[in-house]
Amino acid sequence: MAKEAEKPKESKDAEKKSKIADNVVFVGRKPTMSYVLAVITQFSGGLKEVHIKARGRSISRAVDVSEIVRNRFLGDVKIKGIETGTEEMVVEDGNKINVSTIDVILVK
Amino acid sequence: MAKEAEKPKESKDAEKKSKIADNVVFVGRKPTMSYVLAVITQFSGGLKEVHIKARGRSISRAVDVSEIVRNRFLGDVKIKGIETGTEEMVVEDGNKINVSTIDVILVK
Repeated sequence: MAKEAEKPKESKDAEKKSKIADNVVFVGRKPTMSYVLAVITQFSGGLKEVHIKARGRSISRAVDVSEIVRNRFLGDVKIKGIETGTEEMVVEDGNKINVSTIDVILVK
Repeated sequence: MAKEAEKPKESKDAEKKSKIADNVVFVGRKPTMSYVLAVITQFSGGLKEVHIKARGRSISRAVDVSEIVRNRFLGDVKIKGIETGTEEMVVEDGNKINVSTIDVILVK
């Protein structure tokens, strides 16, 4: 989860050199405002589309991030679409569990 | 929250006599499968469209409900759209807080 939470930072540095999607903010367990800032930073950097992704219990935080960005900071940003899905995860004891995912697509 | 969680039950009885939307399942803090059952019951009753609504931390459970209904029980049900919003809530000490909402619209 810590790995997930750090992706927004990484993607900034990786912008020019990698093929990892730069316009994705993975929402994890950090405070909501860290992700809000990450999204604002991406739009400020000139991106026209940013994906807010999360899974499991972080899904509600992803919705919070999208709402806060649009209502409090960037009034010209709209929701292009919201997609949900299911991923299989292997947990510690080797069992597989299903976890829901969300992808909120914001556009300027 | 307890009130919210009971709405799926009420709506079944109220189907013929009230103007409360019958095709809405409010997801609260009960086990996920109770809401899955409520959605399946509504579709079995002949409804073509069911809304799964939730707010705050229950949002991730609402996504779970939608995913489980579609993947495990009703393969012919699709997501027509997902809407998010923000509601103002008055908490115990009289302060107002913003809470995110979700509305997953399923169609058969």
